[in-house]
Amino acid sequence: MNKNEENFVKEITNIEENFAQWYTDIVIKADLADYTDTKGFVVIKPYGYAIWENIQQYTNDKFKKAGVKNIYLPLLIPENLLNKEKEHIEGFAPEVAWVTIGGQEELEEKLCIRPTSETMFSTLYSKWVKSWRDLPMVYNQWCNVLRWEKETRPFLRSREFLWQEGHTIHATATEAEARTQQMLNIYADIIENLLAIPVIKGRKTEKEKFSGAVATYTVETLMHDGRALQAGTSHYFGQNFTKPFEIKFQNKEGKEEYAYQTSWGFSTRLIGATIMAHGDNRGLKLPPRVAPIQAVIVPIAMQKEGVKEKAEELYNQLNIKYRMECDTRESYTPGYKFNDWEMRGIPVRIEIGPRDIENGECIFVRRDTSEKIRVKLDEIETKLGEVLEQIQQNMYNECKENMEKRTSIANNVDEFIEKINTNQGFIKTMWCGNEECENKIKELTGAHSRCIPFKKETVGDKCVCCGKPADTYVIWGRQY
Amino acid sequence: MNKNEENFVKEITNIEENFAQWYTDIVIKADLADYTDTKGFVVIKPYGYAIWENIQQYTNDKFKKAGVKNIYLPLLIPENLLNKEKEHIEGFAPEVAWVTIGGQEELEEKLCIRPTSETMFSTLYSKWVKSWRDLPMVYNQWCNVLRWEKETRPFLRSREFLWQEGHTIHATATEAEARTQQMLNIYADIIENLLAIPVIKGRKTEKEKFSGAVATYTVETLMHDGRALQAGTSHYFGQNFTKPFEIKFQNKEGKEEYAYQTSWGFSTRLIGATIMAHGDNRGLKLPPRVAPIQAVIVPIAMQKEGVKEKAEELYNQLNIKYRMECDTRESYTPGYKFNDWEMRGIPVRIEIGPRDIENGECIFVRRDTSEKIRVKLDEIETKLGEVLEQIQQNMYNECKENMEKRTSIANNVDEFIEKINTNQGFIKTMWCGNEECENKIKELTGAHSRCIPFKKETVGDKCVCCGKPADTYVIWGRQY
Repeated sequence: MNKNEENFVKEITNIEENFAQWYTDIVIKADLADYTDTKGFVVIKPYGYAIWENIQQYTNDKFKKAGVKNIYLPLLIPENLLNKEKEHIEGFAPEVAWVTIGGQEELEEKLCIRPTSETMFSTLYSKWVKSWRDLPMVYNQWCNVLRWEKETRPFLRSREFLWQEGHTIHATATEAEARTQQMLNIYADIIENLLAIPVIKGRKTEKEKFSGAVATYTVETLMHDGRALQAGTSHYFGQNFTKPFEIKFQNKEGKEEYAYQTSWGFSTRLIGATIMAHGDNRGLKLPPRVAPIQAVIVPIAMQKEGVKEKAEELYNQLNIKYRMECDTRESYTPGYKFNDWEMRGIPVRIEIGPRDIENGECIFVRRDTSEKIRVKLDEIETKLGEVLEQIQQNMYNECKENMEKRTSIANNVDEFIEKINTNQGFIKTMWCGNEECENKIKELTGAHSRCIPFKKETVGDKCVCCGKPADTYVIWGRQY
Repeated sequence: MNKNEENFVKEITNIEENFAQWYTDIVIKADLADYTDTKGFVVIKPYGYAIWENIQQYTNDKFKKAGVKNIYLPLLIPENLLNKEKEHIEGFAPEVAWVTIGGQEELEEKLCIRPTSETMFSTLYSKWVKSWRDLPMVYNQWCNVLRWEKETRPFLRSREFLWQEGHTIHATATEAEARTQQMLNIYADIIENLLAIPVIKGRKTEKEKFSGAVATYTVETLMHDGRALQAGTSHYFGQNFTKPFEIKFQNKEGKEEYAYQTSWGFSTRLIGATIMAHGDNRGLKLPPRVAPIQAVIVPIAMQKEGVKEKAEELYNQLNIKYRMECDTRESYTPGYKFNDWEMRGIPVRIEIGPRDIENGECIFVRRDTSEKIRVKLDEIETKLGEVLEQIQQNMYNECKENMEKRTSIANNVDEFIEKINTNQGFIKTMWCGNEECENKIKELTGAHSRCIPFKKETVGDKCVCCGKPADTYVIWGRQY
């Protein structure tokens, strides 16, 4: 590490010493988000928002192919609607914000800012659904929601966040169940293929499922420090909402039936996950497919004739196919620029100076491995595509290795505690299915059950907590 | 009009008899929006939302080229921030919704749901702007805002609406002023070239300008019934916000200066404008460039062998380049389908039956002119592009003719009243510049001043109201 680099890097807390502070440093210094005068609310800055826009674009493509249509519902929900499904309101009441004054007058009925929109969708579906011909309805909205969290952190836990919430309604339980799985698979695709983070797919336990759901499915991820992050969930509601909301349809036989519902969502937490899964001591590290800037050109000895021009020429050539930046700022040295762009997580840096131009080449520097690659200028376009793809794959693999390294098996409470304390990460256990055991593990270890994975494994035959015979395989972890 | 068509059309109020009811009929029956259980709030349904997404995409392209970066700010603004600029709070206080309870506790300071975000941007800029090197900042957000309107109508006036709000900050007044104009020109481009609605660009009078602005620029449009609609505005703030919010920067000479600001926005009202500018007695009529479905294929005698297959083959061929639909519903007759898709405003209907297939052709039916065009199947791709382009142009021209036909000159109050009552539309006048005259005209005619157009005209030499010498040219109209 040269001196320039040292100066730069010392502004960022060491990732192994204080991961939480490292995270905040990155969020602020890489210009992803900032605090605001509204307590618990952040501003998502252009660089952070561009990541979100890339996630949205990728998702909308997948959604469209899966027959999902975008829609927009009201921000405010009358109190009586929110109260209609008992478990749902019990889950959300403590963290809702209420509008009580509108247009200088006290409202007759207070309105909550949506914490999620099951109730609003349900009341609309009760109006729209009449016959089996109207089904299914597969709608999604991109919107803001509010949950009055006590402790907040940018992207991870914020009083307001952006998300997509899909809500569907079907004629049969089988079709609704299948939709829940279909959307969970799309989430796994987004997180693995776009964000380069491996996931574990599974079902939440009764205790951890969504308020009002019959079943909640989840994609679970592991961060650099071994804490788990729930990256997206998909809920099967059965008729839990269609009954109180009276969503009935006439089936093909002319008989009235209650319909079946699902909902599924992920949020701007995914930006937090991307930071925490990949970042290192030099800062943010973005997977090429989601990076707002995929490569930055830094001219060397820019004062020399033709250098700046050549850099700009390359920029114009590459910017058609890739998301590029060309750093021709005059008040900074190349060394400063290198560190600056590394900190911002740009996958590839392209250095070009007078001698390179003479030789008809340039240097690629990979953000993930620091590897330097000499590239012929007439091959630059194809080569950049190849290197970006290699980085994407390598970042996924590194993340997967970290997950595997940080996954242990525990057969009893002592083993559980020892393993999670010495190698924080996923703990695989058997579980008897009793909520008391689940609570006890949480109390003793600080770990929540993450899910009952779809991919079954047998890691023993006794409950990790009570030692009774057990055949449910559960993964646990401390969580964000 | 055949019987089928009659039955269908009679559900829509006649456009010349009751334009307001016609509008509501279209919004509901074409599935653009619907009412909800939250009073004054609508749901934007998938077909309406897809129009908005097309507007967003076109706009984001233009914005990007103009150096605009997207960002996301908090939904809630503390009361003290909103109060900082005197004129601004006076303008917005009456129509704000307040959050007073969060997480089951009374808030110490109430928070308003953003009616617009000048104050939040200003407080962030005061933190972010330090030196001339940081300037300009050219940020935009796509978001929801709330204004507690008493009377609401879908898209036109709703308590919640979606919009984009751009907020910029500059080192000089000249640069800020130029940005205001640049964005107004982009708005004119969007409205004329995407939505096929001609605009008049100009400056708002002092009375009609935005609360807190030095100057407000506007793009004004005219609807089918001769009412005006303000389609987008761009505000120059000078230092009106930078002073109370203490947004100072160090200039190149090392001296502290207050910066200069602008803001500019348009909203989902543009969907309302598109409906009202182009629709007719058969329903919605969408300009091809913004239409979610540009052409629909309706197979004739679908039970005959090979017809459905051929229709689907054409769909697959055309759907790569155009936004297509293929209507193979079995429970409806072709006649019903024709009317259904006409009502939804699809620019081109493609009919294909057994005889057409034999002849290697199909029929295009234009939504704008009802013209039938016989098209060879091997030319269908190019031909569709051409016809869509012709429809786009023709819709713009028709709209422009309507505007011209509905524009009159008035030299005095009597003429003004007579003309606006016999031919509702834009009224061109001279004006002395006195606000009393402006108020009197409004009182007597129901017309607001729309703007002082950039394109000067001389339509007399006396104020339309007081008769004193006048050299300001103003356009008036009754408004949405």
